[in-house]
Amino acid sequence: MIPLNVILFDDFETLDAFGPVEIIGKMPKLYNLGFYSITGGTVFSSQQVSVNTNPFIDIDTSGVLLIPGGMGTRKLVNDIDFINHIKSLTELAQYVLTVCTGSALLAKTGLLNGKNATSNKLAFHWVCKNCADINWIKKARWVSDGKYYTSSGVSAGMDMTLGFISDIHGEKAALDICNLIEYIWNKDKNNDPFAVS
Amino acid sequence: MIPLNVILFDDFETLDAFGPVEIIGKMPKLYNLGFYSITGGTVFSSQQVSVNTNPFIDIDTSGVLLIPGGMGTRKLVNDIDFINHIKSLTELAQYVLTVCTGSALLAKTGLLNGKNATSNKLAFHWVCKNCADINWIKKARWVSDGKYYTSSGVSAGMDMTLGFISDIHGEKAALDICNLIEYIWNKDKNNDPFAVS
Repeated sequence: MIPLNVILFDDFETLDAFGPVEIIGKMPKLYNLGFYSITGGTVFSSQQVSVNTNPFIDIDTSGVLLIPGGMGTRKLVNDIDFINHIKSLTELAQYVLTVCTGSALLAKTGLLNGKNATSNKLAFHWVCKNCADINWIKKARWVSDGKYYTSSGVSAGMDMTLGFISDIHGEKAALDICNLIEYIWNKDKNNDPFAVS
Repeated sequence: MIPLNVILFDDFETLDAFGPVEIIGKMPKLYNLGFYSITGGTVFSSQQVSVNTNPFIDIDTSGVLLIPGGMGTRKLVNDIDFINHIKSLTELAQYVLTVCTGSALLAKTGLLNGKNATSNKLAFHWVCKNCADINWIKKARWVSDGKYYTSSGVSAGMDMTLGFISDIHGEKAALDICNLIEYIWNKDKNNDPFAVS
């Protein structure tokens, strides 16, 4: 079983986390889902969902890391302790998936430096300003570079997660999930109708 | 403020609830989101999300009811106490939105009898068998009939919720949300690529 470690924090964006969770949750024989915050306990999404989490210290670090975005990232990019935890977890993870402004948290670790990445389009300037040493791709539904997958805003995280599954487990696995959850997959990662100029 | 009352239960399907929650959560000046289970407390989605809820008795019944589907519905359709609660809440609600097999729970109340509705396509025969007195539409992303909105499986709930917002608050409101969450809306409710024959 591969651990899928979902990082949560107050004011995470609901669908950033639970879109990918829905998709990877359809491979229960391969992935074991866990939900973590820095000290564990209850966290609230920006849409008032109250979720119970385990502490970072309980994470099986060999797995896949999923980092959502949301308004909570605005404060966390300046939280050195939190970013150091994300850096350690990222170094040990097989793959790291970020959704929306979750890429800003990953970027702050320095581990994306010199790599291609994308982020939420309405917050694009804020994300880029925070981390200039990354080749930010303005027009992309999602971007993969080595073990890193970064997506555009919110809903794009689902398309990216299906892209990740397609890359790792084959396109049929991704399409089977689409059929199970009746999802119309936007499978072209370069087709980004929300790109900013 | 309009209460959006999200009904949760063990083995609800994560995206059935949190897709619509993401969308309606983007109208925080209009909608107040609450999460409820029959007795309150923690419920687990089929994808292992642990969510805290308040009891049904705390619901402000004047609002909009959102009923997700998922494997938990298989047992709940035969739970007379639960169905009676759903019936009372449905009678008092301004609008009722169901996603996936959530329509089976609503159907069991009898309040959908004689109306048009749809449901998850892989579970379609099970849903229809449970409630024959409804005009089940085989090919539809979602169906609206009076105050009832029913969607196809899982992801279709997001398209339906945008359709609901468009009907009630105007198409611009729905498109503004799509832009915020970078969602490519499948806005034709009759376009159903997952329809069964």
